[in-house]
Amino acid sequence: MMEQPLRKSFFNDPMFPFEMVYRDRKSPQHELPEHLHDRYELVYIYEGRGTFLLNHNFYDMSEGDLFVIPGNTIHRAFPDTEVPVLSTALFFSPSLVRIPSLGDTHFILSSFEWARKRRKYKVNIPEALRGTFMSIIEQIKMELEDRKSGYKHAICLQLQFLLLQLNRLMSQVQSETEDPVHSVPQWMQSLLLFIDLHHTENDLCLTTLSKRASVSTSHLSRAFKQYTGISVIDYVNAKRIANTKEMLLTSDSSLEIIAQKCGFESLSHFHRLFKLLTGVTPGAYRRGNQLFKG
Amino acid sequence: MMEQPLRKSFFNDPMFPFEMVYRDRKSPQHELPEHLHDRYELVYIYEGRGTFLLNHNFYDMSEGDLFVIPGNTIHRAFPDTEVPVLSTALFFSPSLVRIPSLGDTHFILSSFEWARKRRKYKVNIPEALRGTFMSIIEQIKMELEDRKSGYKHAICLQLQFLLLQLNRLMSQVQSETEDPVHSVPQWMQSLLLFIDLHHTENDLCLTTLSKRASVSTSHLSRAFKQYTGISVIDYVNAKRIANTKEMLLTSDSSLEIIAQKCGFESLSHFHRLFKLLTGVTPGAYRRGNQLFKG
Repeated sequence: MMEQPLRKSFFNDPMFPFEMVYRDRKSPQHELPEHLHDRYELVYIYEGRGTFLLNHNFYDMSEGDLFVIPGNTIHRAFPDTEVPVLSTALFFSPSLVRIPSLGDTHFILSSFEWARKRRKYKVNIPEALRGTFMSIIEQIKMELEDRKSGYKHAICLQLQFLLLQLNRLMSQVQSETEDPVHSVPQWMQSLLLFIDLHHTENDLCLTTLSKRASVSTSHLSRAFKQYTGISVIDYVNAKRIANTKEMLLTSDSSLEIIAQKCGFESLSHFHRLFKLLTGVTPGAYRRGNQLFKG
Repeated sequence: MMEQPLRKSFFNDPMFPFEMVYRDRKSPQHELPEHLHDRYELVYIYEGRGTFLLNHNFYDMSEGDLFVIPGNTIHRAFPDTEVPVLSTALFFSPSLVRIPSLGDTHFILSSFEWARKRRKYKVNIPEALRGTFMSIIEQIKMELEDRKSGYKHAICLQLQFLLLQLNRLMSQVQSETEDPVHSVPQWMQSLLLFIDLHHTENDLCLTTLSKRASVSTSHLSRAFKQYTGISVIDYVNAKRIANTKEMLLTSDSSLEIIAQKCGFESLSHFHRLFKLLTGVTPGAYRRGNQLFKG
């Protein structure tokens, strides 16, 4: 059974859903499925080392890396114990950067779309551009501290600048290949990919997965927790709930159909788990987000 | 009788109502009442000298001056013949910088509101800030030239940055006093102010005004044209039409009432003049702008 979700104090101001964790050395960045949120996240790495789990991929973290993390993406950073990463994280709701159409084909959140579609969440900022990114972060920090008239607007502008730079950069590096991380066993990486592709099937239990990975259930449990920070079942459930959130907003299917399509045994199980991980019921989530549409 | 309005090629793209006249030395900036438009304008002076007529005030132009000109404001720049001003003008529709509320008390167009209310349209940018303003202009120019993905969005962001800086600056200098320009005769300045206050009265003819100014009608005609670039009657009519535009959007009064309140002898005269100066009928103007509201 999943533990009670840890509520974080993000986004208390519905008019200004933004938060920054500035130049943080100690705490590992993580968004484990205790709480699946719709906010988007950017993590910039100044220095240090570590590993970042994002969906089924592990990424090395090093200087100049920027992680682009759409809402409802399971992720966790594991800082190196000797040289832990120094990073700044920005959290925001997509509503914050929505602007009227300019007749442009450009979409300000395209980096996040691209990350989600290609399942590539890391971009290494070229050295010549790192100054720009760091300076935007400094400007945001200054605005947050000074709170001069219009500081919220100023932060929105800086954030949009950062996203625009990022979009232009990512459209250049789209063809680059990603180096896989070697410190994670191959069977574990394959298993995460397998879960990513098959979490909508309702027989995805520990036994099935351990057979698939050709390891014992106890070894799977232990190793999974070691590499991802959470249990197999919590991970699978979080994947499923993330999936239902998307379906709730993009389809008109009934809750029962959605629960079934996303691999839940019963509507009541889906309902309970959704409430636990998101803080609201599936129906309320659908209604609330439709209100903000358009 | 007023001449046929000269149509300018601004704002052909309704999704991106923006234009820049970059580092222009020769042509005097002017928006004479041939065409009363709703677009807002910023004029930054790099160097040179001249005089700027804005509503009933004449302003000296010199290095570092920024003119803040709301829509429908009669204005004209008279560059010095020996050392003409070098300036950049930005034109935009207020719709371009409208953003969702952030629960902020800050209003991005407050400089224009302030200029309109206090009838002070000039601010001298402190030397320490001029670099910021000029660099924003350079960024806009670069975006316009390169036309990279998202350049329209980038220009909107730069424009908003400029406005934000300007708002913060103007809130500091609000108490500063303005030096009157001595090269324009006192009676002319008084007359412009008188027209500004009394243009809604329908007996504001050349005879009334020349009596008011204690000069002959022929001297008034000549001098008025010399200092403002247009005839007295055109000036009064432009003032009246600017006034009706505001009333059309802010009141529910009938066209007849508005024509009467703004000093027109008849509805048909108002209708004809409105069409001539704005390109649309009063009714179409009201409907068109209400469509874009909210």
